[in-house]
Amino acid sequence: MQAVVYGGPGVKSLETVAAPKILQPTDAIVKIVKTTICGTDLHILKGDVPAVTKGRILGHEGVGVVAEVGSAVTRFKKGERVLISCVSACGKCHYCKKQLYAHCDNGGWILGHLIDGTQAEYVRIPHADNSLYPIPDGADEEALVMLSDILPTGFEIGVLYGAVQPGDTVAIIGAGPIGMAALLTAQFFSPAQLIMVDIDDSRLAMAKTFGATHTINSATQDAVTELMAMTTDGIDVVMEAVGIPATFDICQSVVRPGGHIANIGVHGTSVDLQLQELWIKNITLTTGLVNTNTTAMLLKNVQSGKLRPAELITHRFAFSDFMRAYEVFGNASTEQALKVIIDNS
Amino acid sequence: MQAVVYGGPGVKSLETVAAPKILQPTDAIVKIVKTTICGTDLHILKGDVPAVTKGRILGHEGVGVVAEVGSAVTRFKKGERVLISCVSACGKCHYCKKQLYAHCDNGGWILGHLIDGTQAEYVRIPHADNSLYPIPDGADEEALVMLSDILPTGFEIGVLYGAVQPGDTVAIIGAGPIGMAALLTAQFFSPAQLIMVDIDDSRLAMAKTFGATHTINSATQDAVTELMAMTTDGIDVVMEAVGIPATFDICQSVVRPGGHIANIGVHGTSVDLQLQELWIKNITLTTGLVNTNTTAMLLKNVQSGKLRPAELITHRFAFSDFMRAYEVFGNASTEQALKVIIDNS
Repeated sequence: MQAVVYGGPGVKSLETVAAPKILQPTDAIVKIVKTTICGTDLHILKGDVPAVTKGRILGHEGVGVVAEVGSAVTRFKKGERVLISCVSACGKCHYCKKQLYAHCDNGGWILGHLIDGTQAEYVRIPHADNSLYPIPDGADEEALVMLSDILPTGFEIGVLYGAVQPGDTVAIIGAGPIGMAALLTAQFFSPAQLIMVDIDDSRLAMAKTFGATHTINSATQDAVTELMAMTTDGIDVVMEAVGIPATFDICQSVVRPGGHIANIGVHGTSVDLQLQELWIKNITLTTGLVNTNTTAMLLKNVQSGKLRPAELITHRFAFSDFMRAYEVFGNASTEQALKVIIDNS
Repeated sequence: MQAVVYGGPGVKSLETVAAPKILQPTDAIVKIVKTTICGTDLHILKGDVPAVTKGRILGHEGVGVVAEVGSAVTRFKKGERVLISCVSACGKCHYCKKQLYAHCDNGGWILGHLIDGTQAEYVRIPHADNSLYPIPDGADEEALVMLSDILPTGFEIGVLYGAVQPGDTVAIIGAGPIGMAALLTAQFFSPAQLIMVDIDDSRLAMAKTFGATHTINSATQDAVTELMAMTTDGIDVVMEAVGIPATFDICQSVVRPGGHIANIGVHGTSVDLQLQELWIKNITLTTGLVNTNTTAMLLKNVQSGKLRPAELITHRFAFSDFMRAYEVFGNASTEQALKVIIDNS
């Protein structure tokens, strides 16, 4: 089969490799129909995730068709169409029983990380019963690729951890796919103001179409001053969706007393937490890797039309053009790309 | 009347000053019966709280007898015995309506800070109806002084914000009065392990008598190693009750995935938050100034005998010996002091 193989920092290639086989009775083999590229894949390619070794097939998102199941799989059978969760969950360990699937003792985020991933014609999915979701008849499969990772991440780690409430003023720092996912799902809870901050005007314009009530270009305006001017005493919920100290600093400067900072960004360095200011402010700061415990709920909201994740897709490629898809996604600003779909149907 | 007057960094004196008068219809004047000294008073005396100006009467804790009430006060009358909350709350503003009394637009922590405090024979209490609590007949008034600040602080900012649950492993870093208050009140929620960390063996021994299941002297042992050795994957709830980077670092090193860091300490500098490690750990970090919204509940638990705050009192002084009380409290380690009571009955 064909797959995108990691060859060490800066190196990837579309190669012919052996197709995966069932290794455990709880495994399923899924034929990939549609997949995508995540910002995390770019981090891996930069060498930021050393646990990923040469020869690893990348990718942790996608929809497909079950090709084979292990003897212990009871919820899926060959031929069924499935959504693949970026997090694999054994369902049995201490963390799974708390719905902290991200920290599953026997899984977590392993696809395209510690085991081969979804940027391939076939993928082995461990703990298939807890890591796949049936795709309803007639669903827009392309849209559902957004449910593998980015929508549950934006919703769980941004909106739920940030505890967005009706009437809140919410600011999202970073209008990438994850920030946009938080923007779409924050609207479940009817905030009064939903402010998107980014340095890219085209993404900010897109954010407006996705429901942002205000946008701030932090390259040309001082985000802290602008955000504070929009409220009497600061922002109720501020989400960090970039992963660098400068954007974290915006968050800690604008959160109101009693407010929430929800960190969604993947950080490579420590940040200088202004605890001499914040100790007295009754704030809550949360972090997290997605648990995907809300995937089934999000799927219902896609089916009902309440959530329209297909809007996040800006580019589509054939599987044979996978390297071109990486180029476009890697130059997201120039290419005005948000999420790209790679089609293997 | 006599009062402890702040004279600028390093300077305090017991002086004769004018007694307070009703300034607003919502004020009450309370004759102090018993008061105490807080670690915060020592911070003020070091010059760490520049909002406190020369001539200010210190103190924000105490019990007393109502001497006079303003025309709008309806819940209290002359002669009633009252517990004074360290936080004054108007009861009308946006923050008061969220029980975030610490951030009351017209109050908050102002006693012995922005207005004259309780280390005096009389004190003016603004917003008396929301800032005083009636003392039940037969109550141990001395014990109730612990409810002005330290018990609600340890409980609200440590135990409730830390979300202590039955069966949890809880670590408290810092066995001062606030850490001890958190230790006493964490037991409401039946944690399985309750570990106290400090550098003072006599305080650790005291913590054992207050219900700590384990103690660690972080001057002679590596606290992180010891704490990690007590659990499989880290501490469920870790409370910072000191206010320096080194103790915050212990907290961020030992919190388990999905766990809580509750910062109670008053910090004078920023800390280096290891977000490159923590972003993926699904942790919750909270901060806060006490709201005293649990004072009435704590009072019930004192009355029922479930909570015995008198155990925190190690020394007692006559009002005329106030300067000696400061000496003992300021040399807490040498003097083996925890909380001191100053009696004006």
